Amino acid sequence: MAKVLNGKSIPNIPWEEKPANCKDVCWRSSLNPILTRDDIEDANSLFNSSVVAFNGEFRGIFRCDKTDLKPLLHKGKSKDGIHWEIEDEPFKFANDIDGMPYEYGYDPRICELDGKYYIIWCTNTNSGDATIGLAWTEDFENIYRMEYPFLPYNRNGSLFPRKINGYYHMLSRPMSPAFSDCGSIYDSASKDLEFWGHHRCVMKPTTGWQSIKVGSGPTPIETDEGWLLIYHAVKKTCNGYCYYAGAAILDLEDPTKVLYRSKKYILSPRELYECVGDVNNVVFPCAALCDKDTGRISIYYGAADTVVGIAHTTVDDLIEFIKKNS
Amino acid sequence: MAKVLNGKSIPNIPWEEKPANCKDVCWRSSLNPILTRDDIEDANSLFNSSVVAFNGEFRGIFRCDKTDLKPLLHKGKSKDGIHWEIEDEPFKFANDIDGMPYEYGYDPRICELDGKYYIIWCTNTNSGDATIGLAWTEDFENIYRMEYPFLPYNRNGSLFPRKINGYYHMLSRPMSPAFSDCGSIYDSASKDLEFWGHHRCVMKPTTGWQSIKVGSGPTPIETDEGWLLIYHAVKKTCNGYCYYAGAAILDLEDPTKVLYRSKKYILSPRELYECVGDVNNVVFPCAALCDKDTGRISIYYGAADTVVGIAHTTVDDLIEFIKKNS
Amino acid sequence: MAKVLNGKSIPNIPWEEKPANCKDVCWRSSLNPILTRDDIEDANSLFNSSVVAFNGEFRGIFRCDKTDLKPLLHKGKSKDGIHWEIEDEPFKFANDIDGMPYEYGYDPRICELDGKYYIIWCTNTNSGDATIGLAWTEDFENIYRMEYPFLPYNRNGSLFPRKINGYYHMLSRPMSPAFSDCGSIYDSASKDLEFWGHHRCVMKPTTGWQSIKVGSGPTPIETDEGWLLIYHAVKKTCNGYCYYAGAAILDLEDPTKVLYRSKKYILSPRELYECVGDVNNVVFPCAALCDKDTGRISIYYGAADTVVGIAHTTVDDLIEFIKKNS
Amino acid sequence: MAKVLNGKSIPNIPWEEKPANCKDVCWRSSLNPILTRDDIEDANSLFNSSVVAFNGEFRGIFRCDKTDLKPLLHKGKSKDGIHWEIEDEPFKFANDIDGMPYEYGYDPRICELDGKYYIIWCTNTNSGDATIGLAWTEDFENIYRMEYPFLPYNRNGSLFPRKINGYYHMLSRPMSPAFSDCGSIYDSASKDLEFWGHHRCVMKPTTGWQSIKVGSGPTPIETDEGWLLIYHAVKKTCNGYCYYAGAAILDLEDPTKVLYRSKKYILSPRELYECVGDVNNVVFPCAALCDKDTGRISIYYGAADTVVGIAHTTVDDLIEFIKKNS
Amino acid sequence: MAKVLNGKSIPNIPWEEKPANCKDVCWRSSLNPILTRDDIEDANSLFNSSVVAFNGEFRGIFRCDKTDLKPLLHKGKSKDGIHWEIEDEPFKFANDIDGMPYEYGYDPRICELDGKYYIIWCTNTNSGDATIGLAWTEDFENIYRMEYPFLPYNRNGSLFPRKINGYYHMLSRPMSPAFSDCGSIYDSASKDLEFWGHHRCVMKPTTGWQSIKVGSGPTPIETDEGWLLIYHAVKKTCNGYCYYAGAAILDLEDPTKVLYRSKKYILSPRELYECVGDVNNVVFPCAALCDKDTGRISIYYGAADTVVGIAHTTVDDLIEFIKKNS
Amino acid sequence: MAKVLNGKSIPNIPWEEKPANCKDVCWRSSLNPILTRDDIEDANSLFNSSVVAFNGEFRGIFRCDKTDLKPLLHKGKSKDGIHWEIEDEPFKFANDIDGMPYEYGYDPRICELDGKYYIIWCTNTNSGDATIGLAWTEDFENIYRMEYPFLPYNRNGSLFPRKINGYYHMLSRPMSPAFSDCGSIYDSASKDLEFWGHHRCVMKPTTGWQSIKVGSGPTPIETDEGWLLIYHAVKKTCNGYCYYAGAAILDLEDPTKVLYRSKKYILSPRELYECVGDVNNVVFPCAALCDKDTGRISIYYGAADTVVGIAHTTVDDLIEFIKKNS
Repeated sequence: MAKVLNGKSIPNIPWEEKPANCKDVCWRSSLNPILTRDDIEDANSLFNSSVVAFNGEFRGIFRCDKTDLKPLLHKGKSKDGIHWEIEDEPFKFANDIDGMPYEYGYDPRICELDGKYYIIWCTNTNSGDATIGLAWTEDFENIYRMEYPFLPYNRNGSLFPRKINGYYHMLSRPMSPAFSDCGSIYDSASKDLEFWGHHRCVMKPTTGWQSIKVGSGPTPIETDEGWLLIYHAVKKTCNGYCYYAGAAILDLEDPTKVLYRSKKYILSPRELYECVGDVNNVVFPCAALCDKDTGRISIYYGAADTVVGIAHTTVDDLIEFIKKNS
Repeated sequence: MAKVLNGKSIPNIPWEEKPANCKDVCWRSSLNPILTRDDIEDANSLFNSSVVAFNGEFRGIFRCDKTDLKPLLHKGKSKDGIHWEIEDEPFKFANDIDGMPYEYGYDPRICELDGKYYIIWCTNTNSGDATIGLAWTEDFENIYRMEYPFLPYNRNGSLFPRKINGYYHMLSRPMSPAFSDCGSIYDSASKDLEFWGHHRCVMKPTTGWQSIKVGSGPTPIETDEGWLLIYHAVKKTCNGYCYYAGAAILDLEDPTKVLYRSKKYILSPRELYECVGDVNNVVFPCAALCDKDTGRISIYYGAADTVVGIAHTTVDDLIEFIKKNS
Repeated sequence: MAKVLNGKSIPNIPWEEKPANCKDVCWRSSLNPILTRDDIEDANSLFNSSVVAFNGEFRGIFRCDKTDLKPLLHKGKSKDGIHWEIEDEPFKFANDIDGMPYEYGYDPRICELDGKYYIIWCTNTNSGDATIGLAWTEDFENIYRMEYPFLPYNRNGSLFPRKINGYYHMLSRPMSPAFSDCGSIYDSASKDLEFWGHHRCVMKPTTGWQSIKVGSGPTPIETDEGWLLIYHAVKKTCNGYCYYAGAAILDLEDPTKVLYRSKKYILSPRELYECVGDVNNVVFPCAALCDKDTGRISIYYGAADTVVGIAHTTVDDLIEFIKKNS
Repeated sequence: MAKVLNGKSIPNIPWEEKPANCKDVCWRSSLNPILTRDDIEDANSLFNSSVVAFNGEFRGIFRCDKTDLKPLLHKGKSKDGIHWEIEDEPFKFANDIDGMPYEYGYDPRICELDGKYYIIWCTNTNSGDATIGLAWTEDFENIYRMEYPFLPYNRNGSLFPRKINGYYHMLSRPMSPAFSDCGSIYDSASKDLEFWGHHRCVMKPTTGWQSIKVGSGPTPIETDEGWLLIYHAVKKTCNGYCYYAGAAILDLEDPTKVLYRSKKYILSPRELYECVGDVNNVVFPCAALCDKDTGRISIYYGAADTVVGIAHTTVDDLIEFIKKNS
Repeated sequence: MAKVLNGKSIPNIPWEEKPANCKDVCWRSSLNPILTRDDIEDANSLFNSSVVAFNGEFRGIFRCDKTDLKPLLHKGKSKDGIHWEIEDEPFKFANDIDGMPYEYGYDPRICELDGKYYIIWCTNTNSGDATIGLAWTEDFENIYRMEYPFLPYNRNGSLFPRKINGYYHMLSRPMSPAFSDCGSIYDSASKDLEFWGHHRCVMKPTTGWQSIKVGSGPTPIETDEGWLLIYHAVKKTCNGYCYYAGAAILDLEDPTKVLYRSKKYILSPRELYECVGDVNNVVFPCAALCDKDTGRISIYYGAADTVVGIAHTTVDDLIEFIKKNS
Repeated sequence: MAKVLNGKSIPNIPWEEKPANCKDVCWRSSLNPILTRDDIEDANSLFNSSVVAFNGEFRGIFRCDKTDLKPLLHKGKSKDGIHWEIEDEPFKFANDIDGMPYEYGYDPRICELDGKYYIIWCTNTNSGDATIGLAWTEDFENIYRMEYPFLPYNRNGSLFPRKINGYYHMLSRPMSPAFSDCGSIYDSASKDLEFWGHHRCVMKPTTGWQSIKVGSGPTPIETDEGWLLIYHAVKKTCNGYCYYAGAAILDLEDPTKVLYRSKKYILSPRELYECVGDVNNVVFPCAALCDKDTGRISIYYGAADTVVGIAHTTVDDLIEFIKKNS
């Protein structure tokens, strides 16, 4: 059995056993969608959000587009990971940095690292272009903004939960300013989380469900088999994009090295709440809780750019699936 | 309380009280969709249609695309505004004007003005290009065609229900011949409804749900706070356009002057019949009945380019909402 | 009553009588969708497939995109045309032809001709471009590949079930390498099914639901009124393509001559399984069983690029409909 | 010989006889380009401009894009129509109209009508969209702005030099807000040059050099054969647009009626100054002086969006050419 | 020295020795452009044309777009290959084939084969789509049309000058109906020049100057090293396409097998008449005379879609160049 | 008079006095184009190149696309800055860095900084995407590659010639992977030239000639008025992009602060070698020699993506021009 490294015991991780007749590597929560627009006042949609275990409870950063359709980030608390108290107002940063106005924020990830919780999301530069935002908190009360790690245009940053060979590492997906037909996952390194370099491409689009774009999803899960990377991938049809979730295993000591990468997706838009919404046919994973004792994984994913769902799997199931289909 | 000016008593306006837990400014009829393809023989879809109070009953002009998908206009009658007898055949004009062939018609509005009912819709010029059509009737039996108010390419004309400072006024949305990413609301004036001038832009697209196009919807409602304008607005996603309904208040004496404009939409595609259909994710308001005694408003809107729904609000609710969110 | 020529008795054709209140020329099976992703292991979707009567039973070639989204063809058997045993693995050809690698296959048709069953589908050339593939089988055990009839880019080939004036005839839809806005049905002739010539356009796109592309569907049905051709057609909206089914009658002795062509579609995306799926708003007919004794027709069509449905009609109903609406 | 009606004697019209070996209907001035960026201080380009005979001399309105590339209109004087004194600063209007800011102006035409000189050009509305501007002057000193005749998006307006059956008439080319692939010539009528109606399409694009757009050019020349209309037309190649000049004859009493229209162009980009410049391969006629006594015509046209050239023809040559090639 | 097989002695082949300082494999004629619009009455352009040696003289088929910009084919004669008498009127076919209207023709090639001269060009099908046209003549007086070899959309067909292993072979470039960014060279075979099959891709686009499209040019030249294929290739820049000429050697007995293919182009747009014209930056080879005794080659190529030029090389130079740069 | 700070005496700077009648801020060398394809063997084009003063002579890094159209960098030497010995082979790096393959290189800049010469250019990442390359040399013999400063997609990096407040600074233009319609100049900072952060937008596109993209050009020139920044800017026409050169002054201590920015361009495509070539209508400055004693500036710019030209100005002329037109 694969061993989760540097993980956390999360005995209260949201969990449902795999249905008897299910042959898929991931299975949906029967409570899906667990979060909808009704969970925040005046919301158009609540999706593409991230959660972490925190002092025996859970904390989350949620993307909410209110009825002006301006995307901003909200804080939330939960005892079971299913039922959430989400603040009706988007949070404000505890600090200001010159030249870094905050106009929009979306698609957050959270990474626990060196005792802090880092938030990575897509935000605006001083000229409004989209790039990665970075911030930290210790208590989910005060959130401190940091410098932009990268130039625009960039989205979908995921921080690794420990230094690797002396460097912090972040995955991201450089992109085009408009809707575009390409996107790869790059890795970058930093000594101080402020200045970044050593940029290398980790994964490019290939064929089928991952033929147009790939972008990192939840914070990678460290196992003795390597970093477990769950990512989103995009196919183009004559009626627009479809978003899928895929998985790969990266080398523990060199995360730019892909050990295994599944040719099959692990999740696709099938349920009505995944197929119908503001953007049809989207599953978009942003967080994955993992209980180190049992290897249980709960993936939080946005569905149809409208709601949040949970899908379950285990470290062993996922690793076996990736290896078998690599 | 805001006062409806020059309005009509419509005691039998279709109406449902706001649901107890509803915090939105508009709420849907529990009978939605009130009109579907089953209401006209051989219809593909029945949507984007307009109604008025008429002699204690209701009359309407309905967009129906039959199974050849050619859009044409049909007349209809109703006693309660909910149940309609719609003619299976599209109506023909009682007159002919040289150089004005009639090949297609869609997205009608109706405006009662000086004792006549004017129909404004999108139609073809003598070369097939799309522009505004104009016609009048007194009895919904004989409908008389008038000259095109404007050159192509234009859509979504709404006439004001009285002269303002001596001129008739019409809002419209000049557009591109193909699917395009821009569209603003302009106002034009006329002394005789035949020759038009004094063109001015009233509202441009801004951000969020109204970032791509805005176009006028129902005949504006006159109140002592100004003209209540309900309009449609468009956002673009990687999977196509989404259509929303917004609202603004224009100056009573100068309708090119926007007094208030809500940054939040008043209606968005949420129900299955709004999200799924020939064109997904569309709410498109074309008429608004208003009872001057109670301020009750019933908005008739096309949903997903397939069916017709009703949403309710009141003059006071709407004005308060617009002002608060302006 | 129209007479089916050279047809087959299929007493066990899947059949439901027309519902009492139905005015449409085609009506859906109450068992729809009859095939879904659950019918093949590890499938993403199962659609755009073709069936024939075979020794009192039914045989079929099915398009299945597994969870790597690579489209390939599977064989299947059924006793009633509704319940199918489909092989979990895509079939392999019994022979190899130099310079004809087999990487993908989709949208098959089957045509019984001179005692063999010919399979026509869309496949790759030696450089990966899409063109028509051709193969034959006598037993649905061994399937023998033949030469590509045409250069790329081509899709949607349908073979006529007998020689006409000494030549084999195949309809196809030359196309663009990418998503494109045009597509016509062409006829080509051959003396040996290996070399092809005498190319002529049969039908071009016109307006409405068939304004962008038209492509042949099931093997044409021979009647004393002419060849009954069921085809797909495409309209473009601001949110993508919609696919419809139409019908026409071609001259028995000269299939490039269109005798009648319905201005109205015979099937459109209306049910949820047709409107929602990997590609929204698609009905795509690939096969039509016809019982020569009763004139009953069962059309097998892909829905939303995700599932398979059946629609019923009769030879008489269809011919009358086409003539009336031509 | 065709007779020029209501024309002017212009004995000093710029003129060169047709070269001996020239078989074309139009021939270029040997002095071409007659105006370049060197004729205005700090100019990037000087093109698409218009001139008229005025008190034995010539006056013109010139499009100049200075080195900020903002297009504005300049006044100019000349005694021979070849050598011009052009004002270095763009002119300002003698009046202001509320809601009509003046930000840009280009591609002017001038029309002498009822003793005044009307200037028609492309300008901005109050929201910056492009539409037709209209102004008048009696002395080319004071220029008075008038209301916008039409809603955006519109360009290339040409006024007829007299009322026709009691109405003023203006040709224009409604268009798309961005570079687009369509454009037709429409006619509109007015009783007062302030309010416009009676819109009809006069000419659509056809094939070849006029397959994408057609737009009116100089003020039409009145002859006893009809209105002589010189227009521009556009073809699209894989490397962009090419602009040509064509000619047609419109009915004297009903200018929406095309009597003859040449299938051959009268001028195409051939000289280096027409093929190379800010926009390659453009000839764009904006004015045509015509001496009623001799029938001599001097067409002023912009070349390559950079300079101004003159081409000569005669009323008889042009009419014969149009009729022969219609 | 490479030996020309089955070639012709052409002692009067147009020829200039390689300039002393020239290091390029091809060098231009000092008489370029040898053909311009002035060589045909009323011509807009004269380009992309083909010639052959004929009874000690030369004959050619020329693409001429007259001033209506309709492309059609003209016959021409020459004694030296430089000075041509070209017929002012496009030729008509000596026969008619049902269902094959002739509306346009362009980019001809000529191939001497079995004592006849075959003309291959791009023409319209019965619905106007573009595909390959085929015809033959023995005397350049009577030209007999044959069936379309292929379905649309296709262009740039080149016939091999002898049967190979019992089959006629033709190269062509299947394409998209509109301007598109792909195009490969395919080979097809026929027993009778009427029915075609055995389609295989020979060459795809690669990088640099041949990154977008490749299409066959002149009739391949047979040598003991293989078939010498000169082809055109396309690169895309932000200002449109650039067309180059490249060269490859195909296997004598299997022309779908590429033995060598030069990574460097053999001709690029450099001269003003190649860089400036109706379509900038185009060299497009359509014919190559080859004198079997000396190995001299004269390539006839269209330049800038406007004129015809000649470039010289030798069989040995070209083969050496291809091999060295393969 | 403005004072050049930290500059170099370059008494042999290429120089021509301003022509008597020239009113422009920049004037071209009479020797233009000073470098063409004839200066390197087998070259297609030689353009967008950079030079520096070096030990009383000049050294340069040149972009050459050979006839395979693969862009690579070449070294060159000159005594007068006009006549250059350029190496026929592209240079190779003296070192290798893992994960940094070198496939293409173009549009170099050179910056003298702390006694080394840094080369900044556009190159490929390990997956072929375009980003900034960085290297250094002391002697123009051995060139050492460094890490990529930024993630793709990026181009047009310019390094400042000294640390500012303790940080190195580099300007760059993040971009889209394909031809795109946006591009802004960003500034980034680094303590070690290996890890970068503090990203801020400095200049966005505005209107006219700089309405689509702006990108930094030569190494900024330090003066007591601020950093003199020469940049390229792009306008879009219906026939493609036009590239211009503009100028601005940045704050000495905070280069993200624009003190002045000229609304007028300083150089535009006017000469035939700037208007005609592989990409028409391009001037693209990559280097600017500045003699600190006289303030003379020689701008080296690529023209039409084909050749290199020089334009002269002075520090005082340029600063005055920028301020006056800001």
